[in-house]
Amino acid sequence: MFKRFAGAIAARSMLLERCLPLKDTEDLDTSSAVDRVSAAEIRSPANLPAFDRSAMDGFAVRSDDTRGARPHAPRFIQDFIPLRTGMAVPRGYDAVVMLEDAMVRGQVLEVKAEVHPHKNVARTGEDVMEGDTIFPEGHRLRPPDLALLSALGIGKVKVYAKPSAVIIPTGGELVDAGSRNLMPGEAYEINGLMARLYAEKWGAYACKTEIVPDDEELIREAIRSNLDADMIIIIGGTSVGEKDYAPRILSEMGELYVHGVRLQPGKPTALGDVAGRPVVCLPGYPVAALSNLYLFVRPAIKRMAHLDDKPPRVQARLARKMPSKPGYLSLVRVAFRDDGQVEPIMVSGAGILSSVARADGFVVVPEELEGFEEGDMVEVVLYE
Amino acid sequence: MFKRFAGAIAARSMLLERCLPLKDTEDLDTSSAVDRVSAAEIRSPANLPAFDRSAMDGFAVRSDDTRGARPHAPRFIQDFIPLRTGMAVPRGYDAVVMLEDAMVRGQVLEVKAEVHPHKNVARTGEDVMEGDTIFPEGHRLRPPDLALLSALGIGKVKVYAKPSAVIIPTGGELVDAGSRNLMPGEAYEINGLMARLYAEKWGAYACKTEIVPDDEELIREAIRSNLDADMIIIIGGTSVGEKDYAPRILSEMGELYVHGVRLQPGKPTALGDVAGRPVVCLPGYPVAALSNLYLFVRPAIKRMAHLDDKPPRVQARLARKMPSKPGYLSLVRVAFRDDGQVEPIMVSGAGILSSVARADGFVVVPEELEGFEEGDMVEVVLYE
Repeated sequence: MFKRFAGAIAARSMLLERCLPLKDTEDLDTSSAVDRVSAAEIRSPANLPAFDRSAMDGFAVRSDDTRGARPHAPRFIQDFIPLRTGMAVPRGYDAVVMLEDAMVRGQVLEVKAEVHPHKNVARTGEDVMEGDTIFPEGHRLRPPDLALLSALGIGKVKVYAKPSAVIIPTGGELVDAGSRNLMPGEAYEINGLMARLYAEKWGAYACKTEIVPDDEELIREAIRSNLDADMIIIIGGTSVGEKDYAPRILSEMGELYVHGVRLQPGKPTALGDVAGRPVVCLPGYPVAALSNLYLFVRPAIKRMAHLDDKPPRVQARLARKMPSKPGYLSLVRVAFRDDGQVEPIMVSGAGILSSVARADGFVVVPEELEGFEEGDMVEVVLYE
Repeated sequence: MFKRFAGAIAARSMLLERCLPLKDTEDLDTSSAVDRVSAAEIRSPANLPAFDRSAMDGFAVRSDDTRGARPHAPRFIQDFIPLRTGMAVPRGYDAVVMLEDAMVRGQVLEVKAEVHPHKNVARTGEDVMEGDTIFPEGHRLRPPDLALLSALGIGKVKVYAKPSAVIIPTGGELVDAGSRNLMPGEAYEINGLMARLYAEKWGAYACKTEIVPDDEELIREAIRSNLDADMIIIIGGTSVGEKDYAPRILSEMGELYVHGVRLQPGKPTALGDVAGRPVVCLPGYPVAALSNLYLFVRPAIKRMAHLDDKPPRVQARLARKMPSKPGYLSLVRVAFRDDGQVEPIMVSGAGILSSVARADGFVVVPEELEGFEEGDMVEVVLYE
């Protein structure tokens, strides 16, 4: 029935080949660039510190003058300058005696510890030298990174544009969540919300169109009018029934290179391209849609955004056997128990969204396995 | 010199005792509540599905009518209704025959597979029953959770208020980053930016005041005028020098219960309380401030926000010996190598912010250890 059935990992590779890292860039204020990715190597325009700086509260001295000083054999020196941490060490002085090792006695300083040259001095450029590469291209800018740029007086930073994702929910039975009470046979549209919130969390600008009814021409029009997005996500109508327009439309408007994936849950997925834009069609069952979001949409957005695509995950021991469908990549929902072990939430039916509500994350079972045994250590991907 | 010197873990416990989970709540639109925490148990006002729903494209039938049907011994039945996935199964029908197991022959349906009662039917309430507890109080609302609430027609959700943090940078040598060129002895204020960005990332509303010069009365005033915040973070002036006002002010305005922590880097920390508000004083050295942010501010914000405080982390093997200061909790910066092992970035001086720029995260060495050996497996906390 599925004419372009593919393995899950192969399907993802095909999608990622078409979701290239974006080339567009923008210049942002350094203080607004958190979690954005540097679009060029960043070199330092200055030395940090910009001058020899005292690393301690104490006294700038000439280290020569302190030679031999010890607690019971202090040296008394006349040429010294009191300094606070961070102050410039004036020219002619090459070390700082700590407050606790010295005492001012009228016009002279009693020094009880010898200091070698540069002792307690943060030297010009010791953190960063002018011209140094601070960050390579492709570096995600974390708060301390932005602090470093600010310290160097770098007020603007060139980052890659965020990818944009347009989400098109389809289905004649759907009603905007909360807009009115449901009539028999209707359901609230919820996958679009889930997809939008995840796409934003993963680093995209995301928006959701109006619900499109099961009408081939209206779905085409929704795709056509959103081809300025970096990615289009269609929800619903991906199976092989009479009204499952999405795959047919893809093959007519552009290319349909995957229809049906050996993925459990989440088999009725379609992947295509229209006018060079990647289009991901997610099944309407929410748990299946969620599998597809994690397996396809997450790495696609991360790749376009130049971000690392490893989700948060932890190791845990399986409290119970975890069977899976052989030949399929399985994403099995799990919950942590109080003892730190995880147990699979075995629920048949990709429509049971409450099974995700009870889950802390999922375990990926490779296609070639038939599951994991009780006691196995597994990697749990935590739902973000 | 430090009069209230404390172990790092003990100091953190004292702080957390004073940073209670906030009791204030607010009602948010479900679609805006991502990563917020439920402030009450949430019960379902409805069944999901709200009606017996077809789980497949096919035909509603009476299961009795299909008894004995097999591919080579089909049953022909007259009472059937074509259905799409998700449509209501009408009264009087109790199962759905899949499209591929049946064929319409004029007025009758040829059925090639027996179906038992409820086969291919998602029954009323099978996902959630009216009155079921969907989420306990204290649950972080993830995108699929909000989808589930939306599916049930829950448009508003009661969540805990976000904690607010006010950051007060102090130091006469400081200049707003990028506002003008530096004169000798000056530095850009950067720790406030780092603290604000992290506080926001960790779940707080955060704002930064103007830079306050080294003037005791002005620092008091800055504290007094921000006592409406849930937490005050003062940066700088935490050591034991003449101008290190912060600890003295805390003990005068309220309580100073920690001054100086066995933490490397990040020893000159002060923790106190003013008018029942927790006040954390961070040292001015950026790497020390960063240690303190992770060790103290992160768990404090997470606790006030009712959020889990485990940071993202991975296991890795140490490529080189990692020494640490005995008796001190050490946060040692590390970088991943291409082979997946981590190596410590050994840099003396908490002023070297570029060492963080090169680091992927840090390893926590407990007080009682003198470090880790080459080849040891360690847990790396990834910088967020």
